[in-house]
Amino acid sequence: MSGLWYREVFRDQLSLGVRVERTLHASQSEFQRIEILDTAFFGKMLVLDGIFMTSEADEHYYHEMIVHPALCTAERIERVLIIGGGDGGTAREVLRHPGVERCTMVEIDRGVVEACKAHLPEIGREGWADPRLDLRFEDGVQFVKDAPEGSFDVVILDGSDPVGPAEGLFDERFYEGVRRVLGADGVFALQSESPTVYEQVFYDIQATLRRVFGASHPYFGSVTLYGAGMWTWTMTGDPAALKPERVAPIAEGCRYWSPDIHRAAFAQPAEIQRRLQAPASS
Amino acid sequence: MSGLWYREVFRDQLSLGVRVERTLHASQSEFQRIEILDTAFFGKMLVLDGIFMTSEADEHYYHEMIVHPALCTAERIERVLIIGGGDGGTAREVLRHPGVERCTMVEIDRGVVEACKAHLPEIGREGWADPRLDLRFEDGVQFVKDAPEGSFDVVILDGSDPVGPAEGLFDERFYEGVRRVLGADGVFALQSESPTVYEQVFYDIQATLRRVFGASHPYFGSVTLYGAGMWTWTMTGDPAALKPERVAPIAEGCRYWSPDIHRAAFAQPAEIQRRLQAPASS
Repeated sequence: MSGLWYREVFRDQLSLGVRVERTLHASQSEFQRIEILDTAFFGKMLVLDGIFMTSEADEHYYHEMIVHPALCTAERIERVLIIGGGDGGTAREVLRHPGVERCTMVEIDRGVVEACKAHLPEIGREGWADPRLDLRFEDGVQFVKDAPEGSFDVVILDGSDPVGPAEGLFDERFYEGVRRVLGADGVFALQSESPTVYEQVFYDIQATLRRVFGASHPYFGSVTLYGAGMWTWTMTGDPAALKPERVAPIAEGCRYWSPDIHRAAFAQPAEIQRRLQAPASS
Repeated sequence: MSGLWYREVFRDQLSLGVRVERTLHASQSEFQRIEILDTAFFGKMLVLDGIFMTSEADEHYYHEMIVHPALCTAERIERVLIIGGGDGGTAREVLRHPGVERCTMVEIDRGVVEACKAHLPEIGREGWADPRLDLRFEDGVQFVKDAPEGSFDVVILDGSDPVGPAEGLFDERFYEGVRRVLGADGVFALQSESPTVYEQVFYDIQATLRRVFGASHPYFGSVTLYGAGMWTWTMTGDPAALKPERVAPIAEGCRYWSPDIHRAAFAQPAEIQRRLQAPASS
């Protein structure tokens, strides 16, 4: 274990460490500590308040999975809203869909976007350059409150863990706001943590989505950087409504997602399926 | 990060750490260092030569996945051979199948089985007690060399990483021996490492199996303890040959595996599928 290591610690019980070659950026914004590191295993990576957010080596697992299930199944995708997503990877994947006319991205922390544009441009590049991107530095909770009813077709919540600046994004009132800004057929998609490391958060998200949207469809994969083995995302739309004309323009550019992976990802591990199907599940 | 931590380091670039409550056992066998730890996150866990092998918290992901795809699809399952598997979890899952008449388990290191029986009995208990278990402390490579042609219906290789005592188990000649001891319809299943942390090992296993068996079907999941995000197993049999009469007796007792998970697990991530389908892939 030579050299300098950076560790994220989960619940004071588990840690993931990476050997750091160089610190490319370190700053304190109004909201959080922002670091961009160059590492042997993950390439460049973004760390916010000590939490590993994204890396060159495995950002595609995360960004393809948070975007394409919703964008390949929703009834309409002209108007997409991203809350968070400061590294630009989610916007990049959204904007690969030719049917998207405007992608509004609301990131609370201008410092994250500026640091990523300067030191980790590989992830967001095509997104930052796209004229359909409407980038705003505002509080996502307030933005959703103020947005007109039915003003978006798809809302993607690309926030960090439910502590710090992202805390309000796990709140039932926020989900109700999202439902209001979505049209009748609108789809909400979000990262929903790991059932192995953040079990209760995962089940709370499912229960809240069911109350507010009447449906929650968790889907499963892995993101090495998150140190949890299993990772999940969840959407409120119908997983089976895969539209071939949406898949065609994006499939070849995908590194992880495919129609096969799409169908497979919604299979629920036996214990999780039992718990979600139980009458009093929460 | 209070207290005592134990870390496994991958390629001197990535590490997974666990907070240790107590060391329950530590010894040096003829083959390796054996440790059983009690940890806050994983419960009790087995560590061999510093490599995290299995834990109470997530052993079911691994053991259900290495056993049930082969045992629910193979033409016959009366005679099963396990190479390795010293913690007993693989034997336990094999022996949940009423169609298994004899489960021969060949573990090179008696010390691992003795330590697990004494300090981690939760994982192997039902297996150790089953009269159909034929437990031998021998070298698996030599056992396969000596076993008669066609003497097993299913062979499961539950070895550790391709270093130390398990090295010979990743060798093409060993695979050829396995093919010989299997009957014409026999199925070989094994853990095949992580494409994120041990990429070349994963592709080497696929190429070797194709040469020797004419087929390799990798399948995907995650094991938090292995720190790699994505984990894989591979079998040589037909994934689509799921037999309902084999699934029925075991499904209710599974925590991870299910027929849905079975079908889903064989979906290949886009990049891996492209590389495995390329004409000159290796």
